[in-house]
Amino acid sequence: MVDARLAELLPPASQSPTELHEAMRYSCLAPGKRLRPVLCMGAAIVAGAPAESLLDAGCALELVHCFSLIHDDLPAIDDDDLRRGAPTCHRQFGEAVAILAGDALFALAYRTLSGSPHSSDRLVQALAILSAAAGTHGLVGGEMLDILAERRPVDAAQLRNIHGKKTGALIAASCEIGGLLAGAEPALVGALRAYGEHAGLAFQIADDILNELSTPEQLGKAAGSDRRRGKATYPGLFGIDASREAAQAASEAAIAALEGVPRTGLLIEMARYAVERGY
Amino acid sequence: MVDARLAELLPPASQSPTELHEAMRYSCLAPGKRLRPVLCMGAAIVAGAPAESLLDAGCALELVHCFSLIHDDLPAIDDDDLRRGAPTCHRQFGEAVAILAGDALFALAYRTLSGSPHSSDRLVQALAILSAAAGTHGLVGGEMLDILAERRPVDAAQLRNIHGKKTGALIAASCEIGGLLAGAEPALVGALRAYGEHAGLAFQIADDILNELSTPEQLGKAAGSDRRRGKATYPGLFGIDASREAAQAASEAAIAALEGVPRTGLLIEMARYAVERGY
Repeated sequence: MVDARLAELLPPASQSPTELHEAMRYSCLAPGKRLRPVLCMGAAIVAGAPAESLLDAGCALELVHCFSLIHDDLPAIDDDDLRRGAPTCHRQFGEAVAILAGDALFALAYRTLSGSPHSSDRLVQALAILSAAAGTHGLVGGEMLDILAERRPVDAAQLRNIHGKKTGALIAASCEIGGLLAGAEPALVGALRAYGEHAGLAFQIADDILNELSTPEQLGKAAGSDRRRGKATYPGLFGIDASREAAQAASEAAIAALEGVPRTGLLIEMARYAVERGY
Repeated sequence: MVDARLAELLPPASQSPTELHEAMRYSCLAPGKRLRPVLCMGAAIVAGAPAESLLDAGCALELVHCFSLIHDDLPAIDDDDLRRGAPTCHRQFGEAVAILAGDALFALAYRTLSGSPHSSDRLVQALAILSAAAGTHGLVGGEMLDILAERRPVDAAQLRNIHGKKTGALIAASCEIGGLLAGAEPALVGALRAYGEHAGLAFQIADDILNELSTPEQLGKAAGSDRRRGKATYPGLFGIDASREAAQAASEAAIAALEGVPRTGLLIEMARYAVERGY
């Protein structure tokens, strides 16, 4: 459902500037878990709304995620050649196109969210949540701290801060926006956000472990790259076993945040999936 | 007024991640014409609202402009060393920080606009206009066409399309958003947008001429750089004299778009200023 809607929302590759639109489609329509849209729609189900009603908002979150992947892969940042099993955007289209494709996806995310079928009051709140999650206290700030940590040793609190911003902020925002736009009461929105913060941590620790243990074929991108770059990761700081325990604990904390709440089937499944990805 | 408000809206340089916040402040608080906020507030005056009521919306437009300058200056795009009389963001802070500082300014623009004191209905419309003006049919698409034109000869219609997207879209959006948020009727919003399209063209042609004729000291950035790169410009396609005439005509068309409209003093002054910048 998300893939089909993204294909509609993205500008056609036949339309000028074709190079830019091709690059946007290439990066966005590559196979992905679509974690953020699924969590956003899972939160809507919890709030009693149909998943479909949050499809566009979910796609907006995925567009922000895709923008951040393209920019993070750039030579000046993580310098990755492979993403989702294929050449990264700048390896395929050149750096200039990749920078601009990321920027354009970011703009399209806001355009998609602002055009989605919800009341203006809720949309303005959702747009404020999204931009806070994307900015210097969220995604982009987390990526900055992640780069800085390659050169300076970090402790457990700093690592958690990096992961909370780099991954947690947008995942928590996905759950919060899903609940909010579906009409959940503030207390439930808060619980959904708390779920998202824990689930985001579980996914990021699991990604750290997978980066350490998988082959590039399993991963769709370079394996062991975090260690080679001296990135701050859970396995690097605590070892594999303790990292598995931390991921498990975060997954359980996510589920606990929704205790007593009805219709949480999909979100509970997702929290379990975070730590059951074959490591 | 704009400079003081931008200094408040930008995260403090003392706050983590300090490198990112320093770079954002460095690029945004460098001396600039603040053209987009002034036009936005000028449009509000036309609509009968106090200029101050559009200060935050105007700052959001300036943040989008600053984001685009930082990314356009990057080595992979225009590779500029000097901007507003000082080293470009990536020359001062490195490429990774510059990419992320641009991204963070873009996010802050949406956060600022979504938090500005207007009705939710109007804000959602303004956010949709801003994201359309920034995306592939506006700013970012125009920059892509601008790069492509370095390698392929363009004709007059293509040049006008590039300038309309690269510069015109955000300037027209500034006027449109100013009128809309100030409560102007649709017909007046349309006139303000038309003014902005013509004024944007006048400013861009004048910039083309200044790039060709000025010294780096006058310009605050490299002079003659457009020609060295084979950029599509008015002087390149039509010569200096015809470009001056085209800028003058665009400036007059901007003023004509507001004929019979009251309180247009500031906007008329700005349209004249576009073509009276010492070339």
